[in-house]
Amino acid sequence: MPELPMTVPTAGLPAHVTIYEVGARDGLQNEKAVVPVEVKAEFLSRLADAGLTTLEATSFVHPKWVPQLADAAELLAALDRRPGVDYPVLVPNDRGLDRAIEAGVDHVAVFASATETFAAKNLNRTLDSQFDMFEPTVKRALDHGMRVRAYVSMAFGDPWEGAVEPAQVAAVGRRLMEMGCWQLSLGDTIGTGTPGHAEAVIDACVAASVAVDGIAVHFHDTYGQALANTLAALRRGVTTVDASTGGLGGCPYAKSATGNLATEDLVWMLDGLGITHGANLDALVATSVWMAGKLGRPSPSRVVKALSGA
Amino acid sequence: MPELPMTVPTAGLPAHVTIYEVGARDGLQNEKAVVPVEVKAEFLSRLADAGLTTLEATSFVHPKWVPQLADAAELLAALDRRPGVDYPVLVPNDRGLDRAIEAGVDHVAVFASATETFAAKNLNRTLDSQFDMFEPTVKRALDHGMRVRAYVSMAFGDPWEGAVEPAQVAAVGRRLMEMGCWQLSLGDTIGTGTPGHAEAVIDACVAASVAVDGIAVHFHDTYGQALANTLAALRRGVTTVDASTGGLGGCPYAKSATGNLATEDLVWMLDGLGITHGANLDALVATSVWMAGKLGRPSPSRVVKALSGA
Repeated sequence: MPELPMTVPTAGLPAHVTIYEVGARDGLQNEKAVVPVEVKAEFLSRLADAGLTTLEATSFVHPKWVPQLADAAELLAALDRRPGVDYPVLVPNDRGLDRAIEAGVDHVAVFASATETFAAKNLNRTLDSQFDMFEPTVKRALDHGMRVRAYVSMAFGDPWEGAVEPAQVAAVGRRLMEMGCWQLSLGDTIGTGTPGHAEAVIDACVAASVAVDGIAVHFHDTYGQALANTLAALRRGVTTVDASTGGLGGCPYAKSATGNLATEDLVWMLDGLGITHGANLDALVATSVWMAGKLGRPSPSRVVKALSGA
Repeated sequence: MPELPMTVPTAGLPAHVTIYEVGARDGLQNEKAVVPVEVKAEFLSRLADAGLTTLEATSFVHPKWVPQLADAAELLAALDRRPGVDYPVLVPNDRGLDRAIEAGVDHVAVFASATETFAAKNLNRTLDSQFDMFEPTVKRALDHGMRVRAYVSMAFGDPWEGAVEPAQVAAVGRRLMEMGCWQLSLGDTIGTGTPGHAEAVIDACVAASVAVDGIAVHFHDTYGQALANTLAALRRGVTTVDASTGGLGGCPYAKSATGNLATEDLVWMLDGLGITHGANLDALVATSVWMAGKLGRPSPSRVVKALSGA
């Protein structure tokens, strides 16, 4: 029987997409349940077995703010690191970077805000002064030979200021890339973006001299738009897509429990479009079913539901 | 505060989309709960109040097959029909058409299969002989001055034959349009289609002389692809999109309970793209929350969840 999805490529899309898997960090950080360190290590092993090659492992944020990831150092020590797999780690500041250096991490990510209000609430800084906080961290990470990814949160909208101007996002992105970050992840943290908006934010970044191959997109599926927005981003030449196996993660700034774009839903679309990515869908679904058992709640991924009957 | 979603049009999309609302028929037909006739009538009134102008009301299929819609005649009699609102009704055959005529319906829909196996299982016909069944029904409906819509089910894949060739779908569609149907709804009944596949099916229909303004798309969100596929269809010039308020409806041929594309998720995208449609999102969400109470299960729509906190 001809397999599903049917593979039907369409013009104007990339041949290959890198899936930047955020389930272990952005996913578990926003789940209510605190997952034991050995479960996290097994989760990351399973994701590597499933063929994913970029696994954001954890965050060196202060345990007071994110108790779910308080075991970051322990996890990195326990981790069965596979050759060819990249394990970036989030570092919010200099203290986080110290811990990442101690743990032997070679790829870190910093977290900036696209809006004044979120910069104040999350970083206790102004939109403009947040860079003073990142700059020494980024510089020191680069001096240690690390790659540095930069997230821009609330890049489409925020719960206090509403819609965010793409030019404002691009200005933040440009500053981060000028510091020496190698990749900019445009985060639709509250999931309100739509496809034309996604194109506009990417276009604004490119107009601000951020190369499109340095741009990643990070959509939350809170309003069901994540995959349509991803399609629009691929048409603009973006080749790195953040996703979370099983759709792990909620949004702390929305009433809904729906989190990141599910890796499985992304993989289904990429398979249908004939875009290579290296992941094995059945292995991802099995991992999500296993993790759902650990978390005590079903995966919100449509593909996981459809293929597992969950 | 700037409203969300931010309106950012993008080139190559239509200015207006007609939402063909199927919640009362395709939605409720596939829900386990049987909804009382007065609830259905109120549902349709609420949908009209919310600004939807095409409401598929019910089906004159034999009650033995679809007990959920056994009250079709009673519902149509009870219905507060609004001026300017179109209330099409599904008729599977001549007997169904008799009942539609009795009920004073002016717009009916027939249901064809894109695959041999589904034609056998659902219609007890071969792919080719199914037309013998529809032809007299369509002809008589036209003689009565009715408009006739044609659904093609399993237009992307079916559970027995897997992926379906777009040319086969187009051949079925062409036959139906040649009979005098005014609109062809391409149904991804099991929800496995992806954006390139959606484009290919539309292109095949156009190549088979079906005008693009006679094509509607009907995506199920079983694999999370419905909105991305809709975006692809809009880029191909399709201007009629089937959707179900609250994402009502499951799929009788899939393990998952996820049904039609949710009207609210579609409306969020259309609003973001600046495409007019006439519906009021808050009124739709309120209707879905009300209906979820009647059905005893939460709406699977992401937008309903996000805006209602359900």
